[in-house]
Amino acid sequence: MYVVIMAGGSGTRFWPLSRTRTPKQLMSVFGGKSMLQRTVERVLPLAPERIMIVTNEEQAAETARQTAGYHGCPLDIVAEPVGRNTAPAIALAAAIIGHHDPEATMLVLPADHYIRNEAEFCRVAAAATEAAASGALITLGIEPTRPETGYGYIEAEPAPAAAAQPVRCFVEKPDAARAMAFLEAGNFYWNSGMFIWRVSAIRRELSRQMPELALAVNSLVFGEENWGLEALTPQINAIYPSLKSESIDYGVMERATQVKVIPASFGWSDVGSWSALPEVIEADGDGIVAIATAGVINIDSAASLVYGNGKMIALVGVDNLIVVDTPDALLVCRRERAQEVKKVVEKLQQQGLREYL
Amino acid sequence: MYVVIMAGGSGTRFWPLSRTRTPKQLMSVFGGKSMLQRTVERVLPLAPERIMIVTNEEQAAETARQTAGYHGCPLDIVAEPVGRNTAPAIALAAAIIGHHDPEATMLVLPADHYIRNEAEFCRVAAAATEAAASGALITLGIEPTRPETGYGYIEAEPAPAAAAQPVRCFVEKPDAARAMAFLEAGNFYWNSGMFIWRVSAIRRELSRQMPELALAVNSLVFGEENWGLEALTPQINAIYPSLKSESIDYGVMERATQVKVIPASFGWSDVGSWSALPEVIEADGDGIVAIATAGVINIDSAASLVYGNGKMIALVGVDNLIVVDTPDALLVCRRERAQEVKKVVEKLQQQGLREYL
Repeated sequence: MYVVIMAGGSGTRFWPLSRTRTPKQLMSVFGGKSMLQRTVERVLPLAPERIMIVTNEEQAAETARQTAGYHGCPLDIVAEPVGRNTAPAIALAAAIIGHHDPEATMLVLPADHYIRNEAEFCRVAAAATEAAASGALITLGIEPTRPETGYGYIEAEPAPAAAAQPVRCFVEKPDAARAMAFLEAGNFYWNSGMFIWRVSAIRRELSRQMPELALAVNSLVFGEENWGLEALTPQINAIYPSLKSESIDYGVMERATQVKVIPASFGWSDVGSWSALPEVIEADGDGIVAIATAGVINIDSAASLVYGNGKMIALVGVDNLIVVDTPDALLVCRRERAQEVKKVVEKLQQQGLREYL
Repeated sequence: MYVVIMAGGSGTRFWPLSRTRTPKQLMSVFGGKSMLQRTVERVLPLAPERIMIVTNEEQAAETARQTAGYHGCPLDIVAEPVGRNTAPAIALAAAIIGHHDPEATMLVLPADHYIRNEAEFCRVAAAATEAAASGALITLGIEPTRPETGYGYIEAEPAPAAAAQPVRCFVEKPDAARAMAFLEAGNFYWNSGMFIWRVSAIRRELSRQMPELALAVNSLVFGEENWGLEALTPQINAIYPSLKSESIDYGVMERATQVKVIPASFGWSDVGSWSALPEVIEADGDGIVAIATAGVINIDSAASLVYGNGKMIALVGVDNLIVVDTPDALLVCRRERAQEVKKVVEKLQQQGLREYL
């Protein structure tokens, strides 16, 4: 098995802790390790042949720094010169892995997701590997725990319980009523963006559904030493700008011939904004989640998140707030409006305040 | 005229900016200068004979540092070894001034009040000086602009308009209905804690109403050089611990024989808590008062105060908040609960977290 970690996200919704050079996956929110480091550690027990991290040029140095300490498995970093969504990144990774091992199985993971139960993750990944042997494209579908309207869903055939169930269709983010119906139906899963497939299977589907993309990555000429990635860099930089931006879901999965979902229930969160952190970090009795503070003095406050930059934080009579303090910027945000933090980043961009980006 | 500035307050309601060693009057909230410095500058145009600042031992060094640059008038600092409220501080100052100039007139001002219209303040002070020549104790009564329940009131005789009106009585903080009645009546004023009197007049009243206190301060033996304050320090330290803690209002003013109020309307605020700052500093169009920030990015927020420690501050969907950031502590407080900031300080004390006090 080969692991591909998708790590090029910008994560503006975690401003001011996430910045251009240290986006969400490179931030250290949970104790010392970044989400990328946790993702790498999560797959090491699967004993992969190789780990490949696809990131972008701006984050490549920090990505290399954070992953330099892992010696359980060879690790390559591929830097995209421009972002083109997930399909080109996956196609590129599949071409590289396929060149070296056409029989490989490939696990694709976003770098910035949280998984509470690592052992269960490994169990599901092993089952998915088995299911992928047949040539199916396997997606990990998270069993929904609430009628979430912020995720896409995967509808499975209501098959008798098997490890992998055929996918009926992919569903865009639903409204509240449909989300509730999905939750009750029992054969709908959150689309996690985690996939397992034979490299040969995904390359076949790419050639069929995205022939221009497949042609571009199949034209790469590999060097001799190591995986020949150094020889690839100028070629990648040459082909990328002309590639079409597309997600693997829309570009391949929705119309692939053989797609299956493996239900997963390992305490997953995509940690999509500050308001998701209470899913990931335990709150105290008053519902206060405190991270990196010297302490919290709470006078009658509730249901809030504070990131403290090593400070003593006092809360007086507030609730449902997100407070994030960094050395040069401070965010105070109503909890249910955490998605709008990206608007702050947009305003900073408009005003040319690059030092805060 | 001699000016006595009462500067010993602890100001816990401005935590975390105010600390034990830099209480409210020594803080620099409004641009560069502290409230003490502004108070000193305010009285210089009155051309006083001398300015005396009564503070405590803990704040004496910083008080001296902040006032070292003023050369318009000799300035003495008297440090109380323990706080005993305003009556002992005023009695001590009156004894010192009286020793050197028994005919002196004495203006008493708190160090931590804000006055918008300095010229009008000088006009009122001059009128009060004139009124004090008769031997009356003159108090400056602020013409109320709202039915405030947080202040004591002074009820004047509904006399024909004269500079100084006889005081009928002092009234404790009223409830909302009474405060509204006071506002409508027109002969009630906020008790500002600013007084003008002949030194001989206040000493006579002190001897009559607080004989033990008067005896203690009259027993001081003055040195030869300057005002002999160095010789006084050990004596002050000896007598203070046994003095009774008492306010000048309760100890003297309420039962004095000849008390008058001069109505004042010069944009006064006692700046009693963070929530009072919008009275003092202009808000932007969204009602955001921003102090010491590198900038504010406002996404749909209103009616809030931010003190920024040089940072970029982003507010998303919040209102009626007070946010105060300092290098080691951060406060987030509901605006209408600003009085409870002192509870934060109490909790820090209880937990022995002295570095934050």
